[in-house]
Amino acid sequence: MSFVKCNMTRGEVLVESFSQAKPLGGRAIIDWYMTGHVSPRVHPLSEENPFIVAPGFLAGSSAPSAGRLSIGGKSPLTGGIKEANVGGTAAYKLGRLGIQAIAVEGKAADWQILSINSGGATLVPAGDIIGLDNYEACEKLRRRFGEKIGILVIGVAGERLYANSTVAATDLEGRPCRHAARGGVGAIMGAKRLKAIVIDDLGTSLRKAVDPEAFKAAEKNMIDAMKSIGPYGEVLQANGTAFFIDVDNARGSLQTHNYRLGSFDKVMNINAARLNELNRLRGGATGHSCSPGCVVRCSNIFNDADGNYLTASFEYETLTFLGANLGIDDVDAIARMDRRCDGIGIDTIETGAAIGILNDAGLYDFGDAPMAEQLIDEIALDTLMGRILGNGTEVTAKVFGIARVPTVKRQAIAAHSGRSMKGWGVTYATSPQGADHTAGPVGAGDFLNPHGQVAVSRNSQIINTAMDATGLCHFTFAYRFPQVLAPLINAFLGTRLTEEDIFEMGREMLRQERAFNLKAGIGPGEDGLPEWMGKEPLPPTNAVFDVPQEEIDDFFNF
Amino acid sequence: MSFVKCNMTRGEVLVESFSQAKPLGGRAIIDWYMTGHVSPRVHPLSEENPFIVAPGFLAGSSAPSAGRLSIGGKSPLTGGIKEANVGGTAAYKLGRLGIQAIAVEGKAADWQILSINSGGATLVPAGDIIGLDNYEACEKLRRRFGEKIGILVIGVAGERLYANSTVAATDLEGRPCRHAARGGVGAIMGAKRLKAIVIDDLGTSLRKAVDPEAFKAAEKNMIDAMKSIGPYGEVLQANGTAFFIDVDNARGSLQTHNYRLGSFDKVMNINAARLNELNRLRGGATGHSCSPGCVVRCSNIFNDADGNYLTASFEYETLTFLGANLGIDDVDAIARMDRRCDGIGIDTIETGAAIGILNDAGLYDFGDAPMAEQLIDEIALDTLMGRILGNGTEVTAKVFGIARVPTVKRQAIAAHSGRSMKGWGVTYATSPQGADHTAGPVGAGDFLNPHGQVAVSRNSQIINTAMDATGLCHFTFAYRFPQVLAPLINAFLGTRLTEEDIFEMGREMLRQERAFNLKAGIGPGEDGLPEWMGKEPLPPTNAVFDVPQEEIDDFFNF
Repeated sequence: MSFVKCNMTRGEVLVESFSQAKPLGGRAIIDWYMTGHVSPRVHPLSEENPFIVAPGFLAGSSAPSAGRLSIGGKSPLTGGIKEANVGGTAAYKLGRLGIQAIAVEGKAADWQILSINSGGATLVPAGDIIGLDNYEACEKLRRRFGEKIGILVIGVAGERLYANSTVAATDLEGRPCRHAARGGVGAIMGAKRLKAIVIDDLGTSLRKAVDPEAFKAAEKNMIDAMKSIGPYGEVLQANGTAFFIDVDNARGSLQTHNYRLGSFDKVMNINAARLNELNRLRGGATGHSCSPGCVVRCSNIFNDADGNYLTASFEYETLTFLGANLGIDDVDAIARMDRRCDGIGIDTIETGAAIGILNDAGLYDFGDAPMAEQLIDEIALDTLMGRILGNGTEVTAKVFGIARVPTVKRQAIAAHSGRSMKGWGVTYATSPQGADHTAGPVGAGDFLNPHGQVAVSRNSQIINTAMDATGLCHFTFAYRFPQVLAPLINAFLGTRLTEEDIFEMGREMLRQERAFNLKAGIGPGEDGLPEWMGKEPLPPTNAVFDVPQEEIDDFFNF
Repeated sequence: MSFVKCNMTRGEVLVESFSQAKPLGGRAIIDWYMTGHVSPRVHPLSEENPFIVAPGFLAGSSAPSAGRLSIGGKSPLTGGIKEANVGGTAAYKLGRLGIQAIAVEGKAADWQILSINSGGATLVPAGDIIGLDNYEACEKLRRRFGEKIGILVIGVAGERLYANSTVAATDLEGRPCRHAARGGVGAIMGAKRLKAIVIDDLGTSLRKAVDPEAFKAAEKNMIDAMKSIGPYGEVLQANGTAFFIDVDNARGSLQTHNYRLGSFDKVMNINAARLNELNRLRGGATGHSCSPGCVVRCSNIFNDADGNYLTASFEYETLTFLGANLGIDDVDAIARMDRRCDGIGIDTIETGAAIGILNDAGLYDFGDAPMAEQLIDEIALDTLMGRILGNGTEVTAKVFGIARVPTVKRQAIAAHSGRSMKGWGVTYATSPQGADHTAGPVGAGDFLNPHGQVAVSRNSQIINTAMDATGLCHFTFAYRFPQVLAPLINAFLGTRLTEEDIFEMGREMLRQERAFNLKAGIGPGEDGLPEWMGKEPLPPTNAVFDVPQEEIDDFFNF
């Protein structure tokens, strides 16, 4: 495999051979590179902070749903280490091109594009795509670089270095609807003056396993294991991730009205049944794959009332934060906002949480969809309000003097409530990534019981962190049958990992991330939910977050 | 002595008897109360964060220059523990009233005033002073509560919970020109809906020493020691703190042009000589005392061109940050801005540093005094730009995507450059208070040598921290002859402290502050100057901050 090193200041691109004793991919690449090569004290927007792109080490293979891509560096939002995880085609294509990682440093004089194909990697001037909506930019990039390229691109939010800016990744249809959304990774890319990475895998082929027979058997074992844990696959294909709207609403853990409620009285207008009904009428789709080789197919396409494409990958987190959290039940308005956020390149979670803060500031009324749409337009238009919101929930709260801030490590808490789902609360409190929805799912069990949640979250975070190195999607649910992973990896790479080695990989990554954060100034005291969540009951369960802080403080003793 | 405990939610004021085994005053009260009574995780603007006011334990006595007041809580700006130190008459009057501390918690439904006199302490409705300039508010308060009261008051910045908001303290002439300025302590007060504390010491008398003869002798020793270290007193009386403008300019440590230069080519228009010349022409004053019993008399009064009062306590930090750092040499414009900041209740350091950031954002040109004045007006007028600037340098940099941020622990670095004065750099890097100009002066010696500065700064911080418990002004320079302190305190309080006990008090306070910060989430990794200061040379010395990080990380090993 190879490592693409790009110095924007010098306009220099080196493709180096890359091999490691232990398999290193995805999030593990970010952890390893940041630990060994980067001062934790660099400013996230400085030239010294690398913009890192890394597919998992199964990328480009036929392994099921192994097309996740890790994008990171030091986060402009949290101030700590960051891995934002995204689907789309880029990881698969990078894998086929034999590229295990890209690290971009320095700062170009003018906006550039990194063009990668089987002939190598080069920087070329960005030309006339600066300032464009991501959808428009991707159309122009395809006309310029070929219809079948995979694209990673920042929108105006990343160009303007907003702390809430994403890197968009194109899906199988070439739409920039998948986003490495959390932690402001778009601003790291923007600070390099790198507008896009275009990836053309023409002339390459599927990566072959070292032991093809064993790999085939391991793939089958994994598919069998996915089927063995219940009809999750069918449910997700039929409903998309919007399925979780009803689940969370029923158990009182759906972030609603600026995190003030755990259920939304108009949930029937934004849930999976409603999306399915509209898709039948308008010709949208569910059961859509976000990346090559995806067997989960939880994504969707959503059309407007005239049957024209409006948005895709219209997911649970978006429906929660631009819907329930803002009191909005007009699903078309939510879809327009999702499309707009994708075009600007901003995270829908952070955006919905930031607008929610404006309710406390007296500047937004729940349910006012036109106002919410206008506020998102302001982010695009570079007004001062747009700049404030574009820098996320914490900055918005600070500017308007709001004490009730729903963030951990300066990043908005994701959609499963940590008060009614206390294991999730522990994950949000302790993850070195801030309160991410992918850091360590803790779904089942006695979720209102404050005790025992730390162990459950720790186990989940360890295996899910390891999965982020492989490139496997969390919705393979492989964290529930980790025994399939070592045979799959060993057959593919020729390694001799044990199941324990996989867990140790996860532990080591978490340790590295935690150590980086400590040196970056994020003290152990930041491991916790906001104090008000320990006091304000969340209807309808009226739960508060009451996992003892001593138990949380014990999290990293592993 | 007594402790006034005020619960704004219940409208309840209790005056409790207060005695401690060890003398506890000023900053030590804040450290002790925050350590024992407050969760480090509370939001600075929440009801649980106490607003603490504490005179030093020599307050109300005849001790020379012992009228400093400590105001603090958990800082809305730094997120850590905060003591902002201010002169004026409040500490003296509180001492005479036998009040060692005030702690205010909760939140009132409507704005209140805490009225304190020899009859006790009560909350009364604030009435028509909300939204007023501090000067106007103080006039109304004097008409209502008596001409001779001491006043602590927040301006519109504190009312709006700006992270850069001060508590103004009236001087001997009743002007709100002295400010507990750093760390946003005005917003802690504002979050309680407490607009002002008015203090009437009518009917009280000077606090008597336990051993009057020994106290008198100790006072004389202290005065003699002050004279023994050179003509600092005369120099400060003749020139005010503006004296340091020339000193820093000459050694290249005057923060100039958004911290890009260490000397200002137009320094002669903003230095002490210029102020003295104008004072002669216009009838201002130097050698002015800021508090009863002051023997230093470093303050001043500055009149406009018509000879009318414009501002007072027009100090070095203000001349630096609203002058040199913004490239402004129009001293009348700087004085108007100082007056305006005093009226709004914002820190001139943080304000000048925040406007400086706008130069990097292309929104401010150095030397554009009308623009700077307009921007300060915006802070008063509650525009979005005003809200951004009102929340300080770090938020301003975040909103405008600026990586070169001159802050430590989210607070703007004070006026003696830490690059050309490396001992000061260590103080800024390590003080649990953030980069304060009072945390630990490191003036003399080989200030460009990176080595040995940690020990010098540590010694200075320890003794200066202890001084913040006594109420003694730093400009007594008592930190240079600490042997005078124990006899003074012992004679006054009847204690048996040794000189070592005084140092240990300083160490213990620093340990408490550091421990609080760690639990509040401020990790050891925040002990450092911004990384860019290690790379960008500061003309004319072209020094970078190169004190080895290992030495800085060793700071708290005492």
